[in-house]
Amino acid sequence: MRLDLAYDGTDFSGWARQPGRRTVCGVLEDTMSTVLREDVTLTVAGRTDAGVHAAGQVAHVDLPSSVDVEGLPKRLARALPPDVRVFAARVVPAAFDARFSALRRHYEYRVSDAPHGAHPLRRLDTLSWPRPLDLTALNEASALLLGEHDFCAFCRRREGATTIRELQRLEWARDGDVLTAFVSADAFCHSMVRSLVGALLAVGEGRKQPSWPASLLSLTARSSQVTVAPPHGLSLVRVDYPADDELAARAEVTRNVRVKTI
Amino acid sequence: MRLDLAYDGTDFSGWARQPGRRTVCGVLEDTMSTVLREDVTLTVAGRTDAGVHAAGQVAHVDLPSSVDVEGLPKRLARALPPDVRVFAARVVPAAFDARFSALRRHYEYRVSDAPHGAHPLRRLDTLSWPRPLDLTALNEASALLLGEHDFCAFCRRREGATTIRELQRLEWARDGDVLTAFVSADAFCHSMVRSLVGALLAVGEGRKQPSWPASLLSLTARSSQVTVAPPHGLSLVRVDYPADDELAARAEVTRNVRVKTI
Repeated sequence: MRLDLAYDGTDFSGWARQPGRRTVCGVLEDTMSTVLREDVTLTVAGRTDAGVHAAGQVAHVDLPSSVDVEGLPKRLARALPPDVRVFAARVVPAAFDARFSALRRHYEYRVSDAPHGAHPLRRLDTLSWPRPLDLTALNEASALLLGEHDFCAFCRRREGATTIRELQRLEWARDGDVLTAFVSADAFCHSMVRSLVGALLAVGEGRKQPSWPASLLSLTARSSQVTVAPPHGLSLVRVDYPADDELAARAEVTRNVRVKTI
Repeated sequence: MRLDLAYDGTDFSGWARQPGRRTVCGVLEDTMSTVLREDVTLTVAGRTDAGVHAAGQVAHVDLPSSVDVEGLPKRLARALPPDVRVFAARVVPAAFDARFSALRRHYEYRVSDAPHGAHPLRRLDTLSWPRPLDLTALNEASALLLGEHDFCAFCRRREGATTIRELQRLEWARDGDVLTAFVSADAFCHSMVRSLVGALLAVGEGRKQPSWPASLLSLTARSSQVTVAPPHGLSLVRVDYPADDELAARAEVTRNVRVKTI
């Protein structure tokens, strides 16, 4: 079964289960296990860090066919805390794997450069930046990062994970005091979106040249010059999957890429 | 001086100062008094109830001309808690009275009728409604309430305040699972917006006919059939004022209306 999820990451120690911590995966698995009286193990598209939000996270779970899928979001809403919601549930082909079938992940990062900071009602998902940001400079620097590169300068290394990624979209839009970065790739390595945003904010406020972030792509290790932007501006907004008849082939490709890089 | 304010009403016992309670007015006056080393007394356009938010509240205050008005929002942002922000400050004519010069108040009320409830990141300013709402019925019933009426069926009585109001806008729009009511009037009596919304939600879910809310306008006392909708869906979004040279005349008219009704 495929589950579409939204959460406010503020009070979670990220997606992945950790002993003694409140995590999205832990709360969801525990609640679903209680409600469905089945052991529930979730596989997720994007293992978000502590404080990162999701509007369109995707997970899959194997459940007996007796479960009422259509009524599940409402049933779970009564049992889940209000900071996490299953907003859709549906039966998918057995080949569907939330992580390995994914074609593309879409993130958004919100920053307010108002002198007075973010609107109080959006402070949980908007970074307050104390200096004015230049949209043109942000977009100029962003365009230079597009394409397939080794993003190791922008990644916290995780054993066995490749840092070669195809950055498919990175652009900024301004709505009043709020700038939003739209960031899409086949996949992201650890802390990559927040590191890209951190580097770009240095450009946006005029401290670095627009050519600077792309110049780091030639490095072969994480750059200490790159500040990782705070988690609360970041939301996973959508995950793309291929058509049903291509799910298995896609998962095969993705798994092989991973194996090769170990 | 005119101040434009935004706040997350969740953790405030409303605008008006109350002993021993955390109120928006109390926090603002105390913080401004400390920062400016002046006794600060605010007059506000709309005294919002506990739990009600504001994106465009307006207040005025008399301050010595030595105060740096332009830099005030940034200066106050460093001292205020993150759930309230002064997002603009400017010098206005002495005749400007945030309460009595106001021509019109604009509110919005957000409701989600998704089976799974409101999006976690918008749960603080969105009511979760457990049953589907019919936009056409909501708008049909709303249109019948427009114009100048005695809204006493929808008001909690306050001594000396008239319940005759001109409802200038009341319409609903749907964006996915979220319905927003846009509500504008010259002024509102106590709990009027939430009572109107409460009555309309009964229509929206099919429990009452679209003609029902307007039929209550013939009552001469508050109707016990009307449920007051919860505060957290409601935000004061804008207050309109006349041009500078008409401020004094407007305040005169408004004050006289108030005096007559005592």
